[in-house]
Amino acid sequence: MKIVETLGERKIIDLILKRLEQMPDTPIPFGDDISAIDLGNGKLAAIKTDMLVDKTDMPPQMSLWQAARKAVVMNISDLAAKGAKPIALLVSLGIPRHFTENDVEEIANGLNSGAREYGAYILGGDTNEASDLVISCAAFGTADRKNLVLRNGCKPGDMVAVTGSFGRTAAGLRILLGHVSCPARLRKRLVDSVLMPKARLHEGLTLATTGAITASIDSSDGLAWSLHELSRASNVGFVIDNLPVAEEAADFAKLYKIGSAELCLYGGEEYELVVTVKPELFESVQKKVPLMRIGQATARSKLVLELRGRRSPIDARGWEHFKTVLQKP
Amino acid sequence: MKIVETLGERKIIDLILKRLEQMPDTPIPFGDDISAIDLGNGKLAAIKTDMLVDKTDMPPQMSLWQAARKAVVMNISDLAAKGAKPIALLVSLGIPRHFTENDVEEIANGLNSGAREYGAYILGGDTNEASDLVISCAAFGTADRKNLVLRNGCKPGDMVAVTGSFGRTAAGLRILLGHVSCPARLRKRLVDSVLMPKARLHEGLTLATTGAITASIDSSDGLAWSLHELSRASNVGFVIDNLPVAEEAADFAKLYKIGSAELCLYGGEEYELVVTVKPELFESVQKKVPLMRIGQATARSKLVLELRGRRSPIDARGWEHFKTVLQKP
Repeated sequence: MKIVETLGERKIIDLILKRLEQMPDTPIPFGDDISAIDLGNGKLAAIKTDMLVDKTDMPPQMSLWQAARKAVVMNISDLAAKGAKPIALLVSLGIPRHFTENDVEEIANGLNSGAREYGAYILGGDTNEASDLVISCAAFGTADRKNLVLRNGCKPGDMVAVTGSFGRTAAGLRILLGHVSCPARLRKRLVDSVLMPKARLHEGLTLATTGAITASIDSSDGLAWSLHELSRASNVGFVIDNLPVAEEAADFAKLYKIGSAELCLYGGEEYELVVTVKPELFESVQKKVPLMRIGQATARSKLVLELRGRRSPIDARGWEHFKTVLQKP
Repeated sequence: MKIVETLGERKIIDLILKRLEQMPDTPIPFGDDISAIDLGNGKLAAIKTDMLVDKTDMPPQMSLWQAARKAVVMNISDLAAKGAKPIALLVSLGIPRHFTENDVEEIANGLNSGAREYGAYILGGDTNEASDLVISCAAFGTADRKNLVLRNGCKPGDMVAVTGSFGRTAAGLRILLGHVSCPARLRKRLVDSVLMPKARLHEGLTLATTGAITASIDSSDGLAWSLHELSRASNVGFVIDNLPVAEEAADFAKLYKIGSAELCLYGGEEYELVVTVKPELFESVQKKVPLMRIGQATARSKLVLELRGRRSPIDARGWEHFKTVLQKP
């Protein structure tokens, strides 16, 4: 009998999924970024839950305010990826007994700031005693059914694009976990990318209205993993010929002799959107939302990195609970 | 600086509430059983989150299947109290590393059973590593705005009624925690009330359509606490002259020389609905949903127990996280 530690998050999710009766006629299949319920009149209720646990999601330098804000941003990002507008969040808190009044207030302020930053409100919640700090947010929003962008609509020939560059969080996390020091000029931007993530809400909402986006995912598990998810859901492959390495990540990689592709592809918690776009509409979409083209979808369901004429596979790895450890156990 | 342990759950919630910007025009005020968002056309989205943590909410004899089912039932019960029909739930899980595949499957089965029992589905979720088992459910449902029953609509003179009797869980918990043994004939029913709680969904939905219910709350924090919440929200008092003591709880009380009023008033996790009813409509409501009249609302905002001519106060105490401990720390 395997234990959870050796299974990893994806296998656990598979185990659970097999045992759940599927709701008939759901607008979004299980396993996409969010869930949805048809409200009639072309409107959907968009719902999402994502939990932050200090032990695995909170580097030691992250303040409680930042952790609470991040717990909100994680959920907003998933709504953004589907073109759903967040309205309200509920928060279930698990709080260790030794936390102070100040700690609780800092958490409340962080939750409020995260929600307001994206035009939403914290509407209710629940508090509990727990050994870890647990911040479980449930986000509620609405979407127009006709604008909904799933993971499964990509066709061979579509362009692959991202809303921003990658690699800062992977570098920032190495700094925060004390693996490397870093010159101050780089340090702040890399570390901030981990402590103060941003959800691409405006971009997601705008992209959804263009009719040009065939598939979309938020990149919280890393760029490589997100591409694999799109590949699996849409039954396509990708050739990535333009790695969207962030400038600071490239500098960091040079400094510490780490591959910049590693930082760019296999990080996580980066919250950019990874989308596929009808090629004939790419230019018109670009005028509304700046996108970086990184490659193209192919009929052969393989993920290939093609740089300077050299082809290499893109592995299906990224951030995974039970496998990735942030703090000492 | 106080720590959470000495503050208790209610003070923590107050601390948090003060720091949250209020969403304008919410159909349900903060602090009611659930939250809601206006969908237009007289329809509301009803949302609720409630977290189960094994350390505080799960007696040692409760199976993982039962705990997962209960985590769902807790949320359904709150929707029931407001007359909202549950449609779907999302579940964020915190799972300790040593849990086995079987454990995870048992949790998934329990979640599914709980949801299906009330006509709802588990629609999505999230898994994480945590020190405790944490099952955080977010329930989504819909309600007709005109049928919504809040906590604040009770008027002096209204009748107070409950959907069932009380005291089983308080007795059952004493058995489960090993404080007392108990004859087998009693034991099963008392223990089952803790391990297999039922939400009064059918009752809540039917009551909401009668137009006779002026206020409603689910009794998960105990009868006394629920009455205090209704009293505070509606700015009324109550005279309770008919204690709804469950027969088994009365037997248990006699056997162990515990006051049956104590078991009935100050238990928790009982999930009956406590409602106030327009007196002229009580009889017609009774034909649709069997209710037990327990007292009457008064203009003076005090809670009084009046039995056999003797009056005594009803304390504002009940189940409270950080104050009530189920398992050894």
